[in-house]
Amino acid sequence: DLRALLLEYHATEIAILFSSLSQESRDRIISMLPSELASEVISEMDAEIHPERILENLHPERLSEIMEELDYDDATDILSQLSEDRQNEILSDLDDENARHIRNLLTYDEDTAGGLMNTQVLKINSRLAKTEALEEVIRQSEEMEEFYTINVVDDHNHLQGIVSLKDIIKSKNTVIVHDLIKEEFVYVKANTDQEEVARLISQYNLTSIPVVDDEMHLLGRITFDDVIDVMEEENTEDILKISGVSEDEELSGNWKEAVKSRLPWLVINLGTAFLAASVIRYFEPTISKLVLLSGYMTMIAGMGGNTATQALAVTIRRISLTDLTDNQAYRTILKEFTVGLINGACIGLIVLLFAIFYDKNPLMGLVIFISMTGNLVLAGIAGASIPLVLKRIGIDPAIASSIIITTFTDVFGFLLLLGLATRLLL
Amino acid sequence: DLRALLLEYHATEIAILFSSLSQESRDRIISMLPSELASEVISEMDAEIHPERILENLHPERLSEIMEELDYDDATDILSQLSEDRQNEILSDLDDENARHIRNLLTYDEDTAGGLMNTQVLKINSRLAKTEALEEVIRQSEEMEEFYTINVVDDHNHLQGIVSLKDIIKSKNTVIVHDLIKEEFVYVKANTDQEEVARLISQYNLTSIPVVDDEMHLLGRITFDDVIDVMEEENTEDILKISGVSEDEELSGNWKEAVKSRLPWLVINLGTAFLAASVIRYFEPTISKLVLLSGYMTMIAGMGGNTATQALAVTIRRISLTDLTDNQAYRTILKEFTVGLINGACIGLIVLLFAIFYDKNPLMGLVIFISMTGNLVLAGIAGASIPLVLKRIGIDPAIASSIIITTFTDVFGFLLLLGLATRLLL
Ligand SMILES: [Mg+2]
Ligand SMILES: [Mg+2]
Ligand SMILES: [Mg+2]
Ligand SMILES: [Mg+2]
Ligand SMILES: [Mg+2]
Ligand SMILES: [Mg+2]
Ligand SMILES: [Mg+2]
Ligand SMILES: [Mg+2]
Ligand SMILES: [Mg+2]
Ligand SMILES: [Mg+2]
Ligand SMILES: [Mg+2]
Ligand SMILES: [Mg+2]
Ligand SMILES: [Mg+2]
Repeated sequence: DLRALLLEYHATEIAILFSSLSQESRDRIISMLPSELASEVISEMDAEIHPERILENLHPERLSEIMEELDYDDATDILSQLSEDRQNEILSDLDDENARHIRNLLTYDEDTAGGLMNTQVLKINSRLAKTEALEEVIRQSEEMEEFYTINVVDDHNHLQGIVSLKDIIKSKNTVIVHDLIKEEFVYVKANTDQEEVARLISQYNLTSIPVVDDEMHLLGRITFDDVIDVMEEENTEDILKISGVSEDEELSGNWKEAVKSRLPWLVINLGTAFLAASVIRYFEPTISKLVLLSGYMTMIAGMGGNTATQALAVTIRRISLTDLTDNQAYRTILKEFTVGLINGACIGLIVLLFAIFYDKNPLMGLVIFISMTGNLVLAGIAGASIPLVLKRIGIDPAIASSIIITTFTDVFGFLLLLGLATRLLL
Repeated sequence: DLRALLLEYHATEIAILFSSLSQESRDRIISMLPSELASEVISEMDAEIHPERILENLHPERLSEIMEELDYDDATDILSQLSEDRQNEILSDLDDENARHIRNLLTYDEDTAGGLMNTQVLKINSRLAKTEALEEVIRQSEEMEEFYTINVVDDHNHLQGIVSLKDIIKSKNTVIVHDLIKEEFVYVKANTDQEEVARLISQYNLTSIPVVDDEMHLLGRITFDDVIDVMEEENTEDILKISGVSEDEELSGNWKEAVKSRLPWLVINLGTAFLAASVIRYFEPTISKLVLLSGYMTMIAGMGGNTATQALAVTIRRISLTDLTDNQAYRTILKEFTVGLINGACIGLIVLLFAIFYDKNPLMGLVIFISMTGNLVLAGIAGASIPLVLKRIGIDPAIASSIIITTFTDVFGFLLLLGLATRLLL
């Protein structure tokens, strides 16, 4: 039967299967599974397919059973999606220790180390002898997802360092934990941004990282698997933002959510498009005398937008992987200026040749060449400097979407082309 | 002095420092460090700051020393950046075992599991008793970066399963390894694409994954830290491609590399811009009679490009995180059609009202409304279906850059607006 079949699968596989099933089927499958497997499936479900909805449909007793099987960090993530009333209802049915851990974790901002950490953490006292330490590790590891990095604390829960399971096993029997401590280790505060946590895990190749408060009390630890999820989430956000989509739009969401997430950006952009259109209206007399310009307008605006998008993508991605010094930031802008100048001159030259040989109008060609080059220089500078400035003043640089910057180059491109044309060609 | 100061830093910190130093300073610092630390620094250096250049500047003897300290997978990555002659020169100076491992790894495509794996892998025979197994693990772990997942093989190096260090420690003394094996485990073939490897590590929360050949011989294993680097690399590629930048452009590269990477895309796009311009030229008589249309043209083209970019970003990101079924793909296109229709109608309505109250031309407003809606519907359909089709025929969907798709909506928007205007307004 179905139950026997399901038991042969890994929790992850069932969680993946869920994304192509209806809510009813998900509920039915969860109802067939033993609590432990059910909790694993729920914790592996993508946030986009809403594990909290499964909880909502469970019988209160079964719900408590599954909640108690969940890691504290996963339980917190899921509960945080429910209303405060519902959270309290569920928490009041849990045993005291579980409820206390989860209530504590719910107080942290979800984009910080505190929001990522699990308070269930492997820790031993630095005074323990080797055999005691090993026994303690084995005992604690029972309920632990990761137990390779062992946190060492003093009597007051101050983090003193970390020690690896391997070092304990290999040590002589006379050794105490204190002798094995690695005192240089990486840790984070609870309010550290999750992107910084990801950077540290990635740079130092850590399986987990301890989280401490301002007095170095051990609060919890963050494991690499949750950091991998953060990286995916942050990358999704960046790609969406840079493309003018609200960062919270669910990739698999329905059309209603998509309209809600994208229409505001389109309306903002319509405002800037009106600006570009008003430049064109201002120069209407010029266009009506030289209708040929309309075709070139779309080329100059288009190429400017593309150049800005290119510079923007490279700069935003670079900022998100490393912190740039002032000097590096300055050289980035200088580089994009140069790239805009050269690409602008090359593209401008092609269009100039077209204007000479097809339209037989060298002077108009020259105006187009200058406008193309000027617009691509501005596009490069804007594409690089806007995200750099945003980063300095503490705004996520990915908000400088290609949508905004593209209309910016439209306005400038039209001003340049039509202004020069009015001066030189009429 | 500087050397004493450097020794207090973690290899990763020195590697990060390197990104803001000149090649000469990097060489000088490496020359001060003991071989082991030097090799760690080199293996942690970002590929963009070219660790192979440091090798090139080392004395042959020192070079061999450092090469022998490197993990095989890292040594391979760095050597692969050098010419084949230079590779052979360096390899001939190494001891036989090192050279053999690296030569073997150099044969795999760098974007596959084989290109990521380390052949130095912790493995024990399934016939070992508990204490023998534990001794063996400790012995092998000496030179191993990760040793939490222990591969279990038979006498012929066939992978039989995995066992965790914890399970060995906790087991009774009478147990043999065979009894502890987890037989359901995740593994990959050497030619598996690195994105699939990353997906598996992420979904199953693995610290490492074994790599096997077609007969299940154990070839090596891939660790989570290298997979984190793959994820960063693939995300950089996607953001660059979607923005019309060649995937190989180095984020910190100079203007020459940037021009080489971006100019070809701009030229391709110039071709499509000529297409859009030729639509405008075809309708020149209409424009010269109704110059007011020029301003609206830029709005319709702009909003179409933005809508396509939005649909594209959401669809590409979704495809890169999950495989869509045919039904899901179909519903994605349907969703983007609906979003385009609604957003198009809303934006179209705003512009319609403007045309009625500002330009006092309701019929022109209607033409603009229809064109805006039509263009945004097409933009949504194109933004969703182009990457989906590319994925089906085996082309990286991120190649469907917003640059290409934007000009596509330009052409269609102009055709619709100017065609309708010619029919209805003249
Ligand atoms: Mg977020
Ligand atoms: Mg959380
Ligand atoms: Mg953030
Ligand atoms: Mg790393
Ligand atoms: Mg966790
Ligand atoms: Mg988890
Ligand atoms: Mg971010
Ligand atoms: Mg690649
Ligand atoms: Mg490699
Ligand atoms: Mg995961
Ligand atoms: Mg490695
Ligand atoms: Mg590595
Ligand atoms: Mg890719």
